[in-house]
Amino acid sequence: MASGSLLQALVDELGRLPGIGPKSAQRIAFHLLKVADEDARRLADAIVDVKERVTLCSRCFNVAEGELCDICSDTRRDGSVLCVVEDPRDVAALEKTQEFRGRYHVLHGALNPIEGVGPDQLRVRELLSRLDDEGVTEVILCTNPNLEGEATAMYLARLLKPLGTRVTRLASGLPVGGDLEYADELTLGRALEGRREVDA
Amino acid sequence: MASGSLLQALVDELGRLPGIGPKSAQRIAFHLLKVADEDARRLADAIVDVKERVTLCSRCFNVAEGELCDICSDTRRDGSVLCVVEDPRDVAALEKTQEFRGRYHVLHGALNPIEGVGPDQLRVRELLSRLDDEGVTEVILCTNPNLEGEATAMYLARLLKPLGTRVTRLASGLPVGGDLEYADELTLGRALEGRREVDA
Repeated sequence: MASGSLLQALVDELGRLPGIGPKSAQRIAFHLLKVADEDARRLADAIVDVKERVTLCSRCFNVAEGELCDICSDTRRDGSVLCVVEDPRDVAALEKTQEFRGRYHVLHGALNPIEGVGPDQLRVRELLSRLDDEGVTEVILCTNPNLEGEATAMYLARLLKPLGTRVTRLASGLPVGGDLEYADELTLGRALEGRREVDA
Repeated sequence: MASGSLLQALVDELGRLPGIGPKSAQRIAFHLLKVADEDARRLADAIVDVKERVTLCSRCFNVAEGELCDICSDTRRDGSVLCVVEDPRDVAALEKTQEFRGRYHVLHGALNPIEGVGPDQLRVRELLSRLDDEGVTEVILCTNPNLEGEATAMYLARLLKPLGTRVTRLASGLPVGGDLEYADELTLGRALEGRREVDA
């Protein structure tokens, strides 16, 4: 396979995707070479469609195919509770639980002073203006349970509490199906701290 | 992210690729959503280009962008030595060594009676006709050193030797940079069997 060939161009483009190394890129390129034309075409079209027609919701900054995302335009959702997340993928993860009927607010990142991400780089101002506009009574901070996510949650809690909104945080603890023996001490400590009465 | 959305369609298409699970597919889809339009477009175009313009070389069945592949149309290559490989990817791997100046013949598979792959499903007939047409004096069997590859090499050796062609096989032995301790007994046995005089 000569470099500069069409196949090599495809391998190069695939190799730019996250988590795809040169070997995987080659494997995928040869796979695409073998599959039916319409299957490959469907993938190419799906890429173009997403780039051309998927934008961010003007209200919650989740992915959307119009002015508002599916969740913001669904009038059955409870607008008084907001889940604040870092990324649209987190919206997808929370939606899968089918436990939450409120709305979302996507920050598009977490505070990270070292990389120059402060509150102005996140959708914090937009969150504040939603609290008034939409009559939000509870904000659930669903940032990741890591350093940046915790710092962001802490920052938002201090910002939002004085405004009279109820501010909660996702529970930390043992993952369901996990093994106590293999839990790290921080997680186990949080699980102890957050222990609950058993209803019996 | 509602199922049925454009983004979900892209995740589904990406998830069909080999080695891409649902999580990776989602990660790549969100990555494509974020990158510049022209970067995503380049990937989509590369896929379409490969499907529309890459075919198989009519002589050696390597990938080609015209009637003949780059190697078959290169008159400086030695047509008297043929490397027989299972897959076009193997051509790419051998080319990277820069050790081989002959030509190739791609079988597109290996014998596998259980899955119904016999000599008729491989490009064996085409290989035989090339021996005469192109004055081939040596065939190097470069099928994979596994069960199917070895069976294919054995089959071809028995077929080609009576025709007066020199038939050789890639050496088996310890991989360079490998560790004797971790070599499996079959490989180590082959390495012993194929031991060579040390020039000193």
